Amino acid sequence: MLLDKKSPIPVYFQLKNFIKEDIERRKLKPGDPIPSEREYCEKYKISRMTVRQALKELETEGIIVRERGRGSFVAIPRIEQEDLMSFTEMVRARGMKPETEMVEFLKIPAGNLSTMLDVKAQDSVFKITRVRKADGIPVALETVYIPEESVPHLEKKDLTGSLYNILREEYGMEVRGSKTSFSAAMSTPFLEEQLKLEEPMPLLKVESVNFAAGLTYYELSYYRSDQFKITVNLSRG
Amino acid sequence: MLLDKKSPIPVYFQLKNFIKEDIERRKLKPGDPIPSEREYCEKYKISRMTVRQALKELETEGIIVRERGRGSFVAIPRIEQEDLMSFTEMVRARGMKPETEMVEFLKIPAGNLSTMLDVKAQDSVFKITRVRKADGIPVALETVYIPEESVPHLEKKDLTGSLYNILREEYGMEVRGSKTSFSAAMSTPFLEEQLKLEEPMPLLKVESVNFAAGLTYYELSYYRSDQFKITVNLSRG
Repeated sequence: MLLDKKSPIPVYFQLKNFIKEDIERRKLKPGDPIPSEREYCEKYKISRMTVRQALKELETEGIIVRERGRGSFVAIPRIEQEDLMSFTEMVRARGMKPETEMVEFLKIPAGNLSTMLDVKAQDSVFKITRVRKADGIPVALETVYIPEESVPHLEKKDLTGSLYNILREEYGMEVRGSKTSFSAAMSTPFLEEQLKLEEPMPLLKVESVNFAAGLTYYELSYYRSDQFKITVNLSRG
Repeated sequence: MLLDKKSPIPVYFQLKNFIKEDIERRKLKPGDPIPSEREYCEKYKISRMTVRQALKELETEGIIVRERGRGSFVAIPRIEQEDLMSFTEMVRARGMKPETEMVEFLKIPAGNLSTMLDVKAQDSVFKITRVRKADGIPVALETVYIPEESVPHLEKKDLTGSLYNILREEYGMEVRGSKTSFSAAMSTPFLEEQLKLEEPMPLLKVESVNFAAGLTYYELSYYRSDQFKITVNLSRG
């Protein structure tokens, strides 16, 4: 592809559209590094100012993410949820492929969680820790606490997909609502390992109590929010 | 107040209730430091284990927050919003006193924000930066971008209160909905200064596009999420 320096279309705008096309055609995929300013200057024989203007506008439009000292990357498209969506739905809504990797499956007593889960302290709870990915990029570490009595034999199900789907299809329970809290937390060495972070970074902490008929379960997730944001629509009477 | 070591009520439980009462009676206020484990041991002649159990349960119940190396603090009560609430409403819902401190009031061209705000790039936008407080504790730095043409002479209003109220009472515009994004970000020196943080910490970044009849405005806030969480109820079809 060549830039047309005689065109009435400004050169920076042409470059910006080239990069956008590469992203739309998935030559550059979410999370991929973008060539450096210098590489663009040399490839197209244009000034650094021109390249910067193109990258700046792509950043403003949320198409790329620039990280100081690391360069620019294709942004993971912002996920907007009209209402309560599962991780799988959020990722699919953006035309990306959700994947899940099991980290740990434990059976523990409810203990301190018993009030929240509406069970007795000595009742068994499954603690399920999974890495959730979008197009192969680990974007969240999720831990679910779910009472065994509501989902007997969950250990025998394939948990590398959507838990919402398993609840619906295998147990006939539809998640209808959630009380969700948002806060921020620094990554820990465990989170850095699971999310393949090269250095500590602030993460979006999402705590939900989810409700279905006959089931209450708790979910604690840490999202790489540098690229993956959660958007909700709120309204008032 | 004295602990009754002969009572059938376990000592740790009595201590826990003493601390809870101090908080309920506001002898200890949100954000206040709690006496150290050692101080409780000495004051009541009880073991460290007993004190730890009391503090651990208070932490589990979200009544206190423990910070490594810094000690324990009275938690700012978690704010739960049923739907879209203003900062002022969120704070009042917890029986706390909202306060606002102006940092900056500027008039700037809409520029890159023009599409989002539905105005022309050269149109004037008020950029209003404020520190929002709960019972005197700075919990958020908020920057609002609002088109001048929708709120003429806003510079003459008292902005140390609720912007929602000003919009309603002075301009007859009721905020009806918002598209709100949650992510995490590290504090910057500017944020640390404004929020009176002693050291860098991860903050909850909340970006909202708010809608009223005849008005769209953008709001970017950074919350001290170590104590102040935002909770929303989500539901699905």
